[in-house]
Amino acid sequence: MELLKALEWRYATKKMNGNVVPQEKVDYIIEAARLAPSSSGLQPYEIFVISDKALLEKIQAIAFNQSQITDASHLLVFAAWDGYSLEKIEKVFARTVAERGLPTDKMDDYKKMLWGMYEPLGKEWHATHAAKQAYIAFGLAIAAAAEQKVDTTPMEGFVPAELDKLLGLEALGLKSVVILPLGYRDEANDWLLNLKKVRTPKEAFVTEIK
Amino acid sequence: MELLKALEWRYATKKMNGNVVPQEKVDYIIEAARLAPSSSGLQPYEIFVISDKALLEKIQAIAFNQSQITDASHLLVFAAWDGYSLEKIEKVFARTVAERGLPTDKMDDYKKMLWGMYEPLGKEWHATHAAKQAYIAFGLAIAAAAEQKVDTTPMEGFVPAELDKLLGLEALGLKSVVILPLGYRDEANDWLLNLKKVRTPKEAFVTEIK
Repeated sequence: MELLKALEWRYATKKMNGNVVPQEKVDYIIEAARLAPSSSGLQPYEIFVISDKALLEKIQAIAFNQSQITDASHLLVFAAWDGYSLEKIEKVFARTVAERGLPTDKMDDYKKMLWGMYEPLGKEWHATHAAKQAYIAFGLAIAAAAEQKVDTTPMEGFVPAELDKLLGLEALGLKSVVILPLGYRDEANDWLLNLKKVRTPKEAFVTEIK
Repeated sequence: MELLKALEWRYATKKMNGNVVPQEKVDYIIEAARLAPSSSGLQPYEIFVISDKALLEKIQAIAFNQSQITDASHLLVFAAWDGYSLEKIEKVFARTVAERGLPTDKMDDYKKMLWGMYEPLGKEWHATHAAKQAYIAFGLAIAAAAEQKVDTTPMEGFVPAELDKLLGLEALGLKSVVILPLGYRDEANDWLLNLKKVRTPKEAFVTEIK
């Protein structure tokens, strides 16, 4: 489906019907997120794909009891690095030059420049910057789901520290930043389904400087 | 074009050829960004679409002289609210209920809850949160461009405070967060074009909990 049509079709589904999303569509959506661009190509985030019902119930309890979390087929948790380090950057760049068949020292100057810039900014800045990159991937996952006619509910409404505990993220150097239930709209019971999609009008959204 | 194919096709174009992107494609890309979901539907960002060559030269000078800024057809500047306020939230919700034909007090409780949550978090948190929302729209613009075979270079490499000055954003309550040149790859002169796209392997990117 053409992207704009898919974006018109989608909405933040408020009630899902429990139907299962086929694995190939889940894989497609994750692949879109994996292909997302990120600052210096570091991809400072991972995705947890949860369909374990007992775990989803626990997550629901720390997410304002939103019904989509247990009525969804899968829940995607976007977890970003809690900070950058020279080691993490080196690991990514080593993979990049290896896969491209370039000399191993090819990105050494860039790596030094980047870490020289990041290091003094501190861990809180790092985590925020990594989270922003995850939002790009989050956007692409939403778009890919809509193209595949899979419903989603983009959610920030959960307690990140509690979710981090549930998933053991701290030990992995990750922080949960945003979550995305995947499923199908419950057409008879979703109050939002038939309400008009409202967006900032184009004239207030765009300023052209020609 | 199918989204995954488009995401495989795209890359952070390092050298553009100066060709002009048709207005209908620019409009399409902006519309994808306008349709992006955002927290509570506030869309706390705007887009500046710049094709004025003199202005682009000034921006290039505060963006590490990256050639794409002047070789692009248009430059999109994503500018996020510098903070939330009850007035801004009320304005959005008033439009939402009006367009949906709902009673004017329909979202009063939600509005109070939201501002009750946001107000104590402070302006820096607000600006960061608004910027994250802009990154979702940024992701959708990149996807829409790729679908339309328009090249882009996602860029954080500029001095936001200087760009804010150039565009007079402070007076508008906005901060530049990320920029996106739109144009076409210079096939003969882009060193990145023929290098393999490298991403985190799926097994390191995804954790399934079934």
